Amino acid sequence: MKPRITLKKIANEFGVSISTVSKALKDSHEISEETREKIKAFAGFYNYKPNSLALQLRNQKTSVIGVIIPEIVHHFFSTVINGIETYANEKGYNVMVCLSNESYDKEVSNISVLTNGSVDGLIVSLARETQQNQNFKHFEALIKDDFPLVLFDRVKDDLACDKVIIDDVGGAYKAANHLVEIGKRRIALLTTQDYITVGSLRKEGYLKSLVKNDIGIDESLIYKIDDKQDLYEQIKKVIFVKNPPDAILAVNEIYAANALKIAKERGLTIPNDIAIIGFTSGLISEFTSPPLTSVVQHGFLMGKQTAELLINRIEHTASKEYQKEVISPNLKIRQSTLIK
Amino acid sequence: MKPRITLKKIANEFGVSISTVSKALKDSHEISEETREKIKAFAGFYNYKPNSLALQLRNQKTSVIGVIIPEIVHHFFSTVINGIETYANEKGYNVMVCLSNESYDKEVSNISVLTNGSVDGLIVSLARETQQNQNFKHFEALIKDDFPLVLFDRVKDDLACDKVIIDDVGGAYKAANHLVEIGKRRIALLTTQDYITVGSLRKEGYLKSLVKNDIGIDESLIYKIDDKQDLYEQIKKVIFVKNPPDAILAVNEIYAANALKIAKERGLTIPNDIAIIGFTSGLISEFTSPPLTSVVQHGFLMGKQTAELLINRIEHTASKEYQKEVISPNLKIRQSTLIK
Repeated sequence: MKPRITLKKIANEFGVSISTVSKALKDSHEISEETREKIKAFAGFYNYKPNSLALQLRNQKTSVIGVIIPEIVHHFFSTVINGIETYANEKGYNVMVCLSNESYDKEVSNISVLTNGSVDGLIVSLARETQQNQNFKHFEALIKDDFPLVLFDRVKDDLACDKVIIDDVGGAYKAANHLVEIGKRRIALLTTQDYITVGSLRKEGYLKSLVKNDIGIDESLIYKIDDKQDLYEQIKKVIFVKNPPDAILAVNEIYAANALKIAKERGLTIPNDIAIIGFTSGLISEFTSPPLTSVVQHGFLMGKQTAELLINRIEHTASKEYQKEVISPNLKIRQSTLIK
Repeated sequence: MKPRITLKKIANEFGVSISTVSKALKDSHEISEETREKIKAFAGFYNYKPNSLALQLRNQKTSVIGVIIPEIVHHFFSTVINGIETYANEKGYNVMVCLSNESYDKEVSNISVLTNGSVDGLIVSLARETQQNQNFKHFEALIKDDFPLVLFDRVKDDLACDKVIIDDVGGAYKAANHLVEIGKRRIALLTTQDYITVGSLRKEGYLKSLVKNDIGIDESLIYKIDDKQDLYEQIKKVIFVKNPPDAILAVNEIYAANALKIAKERGLTIPNDIAIIGFTSGLISEFTSPPLTSVVQHGFLMGKQTAELLINRIEHTASKEYQKEVISPNLKIRQSTLIK
């Protein structure tokens, strides 16, 4: 028996996209006669039926939006999903969420599952591993197929699709300026490894503020947290030193909440001895003691905007050029930086 | 032109399940000849093709599990999803998550979207509105169709499917006993409205503990929080009274964290003046000051168990009888109840 043949296998055989195979089998004049003939001959040999399930599925509207996020135990992503849901439901769409768990392979498999007829378009925030590998073939294939796609928060600039990002440079710049305004000079940055774009953009904003305020850059105050190692122990090394920093800017809420806890353990007064700001105003920041000043990322708004861009793309009401929307974060000042 | 006919429309027309229609069109002997003939005649009149997309889809394995949860900004549900993901991925399944946003209609529409060929089985925690309405027809239809289904946490006992629940009575009983052991007698309960099963089960455990410990039940210490109204103001009314309770047992983390904040605002010492315990050991409990003692619900374990039950059902390796697994919560004691 001949092996079962799929659109994908034919596409791989000839090094073309699935969309090209699909068009060739439908005798579309967008495809050269030569390519059409050879694809049809190959498909015929393997008894491929052009009006197969997969092909029908690709052309059938589902009124469902697929969303892929790196992790779910994360207030920011949860609020983005709420925003996507709200806008999508208003427009008569359902939403399906998959997790990449920061893994490249899972991101690829999620895309393949969701685009196999389940959804009309995709909203994705890139997995850490994808950013690390810089391998975007799975997105390039979607783009080639004209599959509606919007990236948010963790994006890749040169992919041809709509994007919604936060002005991370501006957010960190505002936060660092605020720390300088309350009299701080030795501001430590708790950031991520460089390949996480949001981490390196926030570092850029932090450095920009130091330069603007004539504060020398002290590389020993910049800590790149390794998420695979114990968070508490890493942050302890920042604060349990002879001469601790007088302020901390953390690129997320968990780093900030840990810093606050550890500073209190060392007997430091907040904000007088050490002021602390985190990114993301989630549930934790409000309930720490003192509550944490945060860079508010407007996840709900971000979700609404990504859903709007995607649905416009699905319904062909979008402008031809891809949009890049930038959301400006603002500071929510709480007691962790409120000097009386 | 005749209107397009679907399996569902035919099923509605005759008041039978989609599965019955599907079987009738395939001439299955499970269906009476009379029913088969009338369904076939009707389908024929409308040019319904029995080997249509929907029918093929229903019979095609997707290796995807669908999950419907009431809300996403909720640490407990996030950890359950992580548990489902972990087990499902090990077994080669992907996971798709939809939100009901506590709405009956959304739950129905999520089920219809997910079971239309996207997934092999469903894991659901009931929406608040579904529990309120006590309308379970959408689940009864799935069960009639032998569609693999597992309910967790918020379940309906008499639905014929596998279930995983937390021993909510036992958890609240342990928590209230602990408060009595540290010398508390006037224990207030912050719970939900009665139709939320987990709320009323936790109330049952609380009452059981009072009876066991010979403490009279004081109905004025039982507060049913209305989630549609301002949380802070409602909890303020519990604590800003002449003679506040000496302990609070809250059925979730947010109620507990708010109670702690408000007690501090009133100048009460925790745990000496007032001890506080919440359900769900999420991120908040660890970072409040003092940190909150919590009833740990083992969401991750719960997720793994639901996924295991579902996959056994999908792969026909489950026992014929439906399982009801009960997870015992335990207390994570932190400073909010630690009397020195």
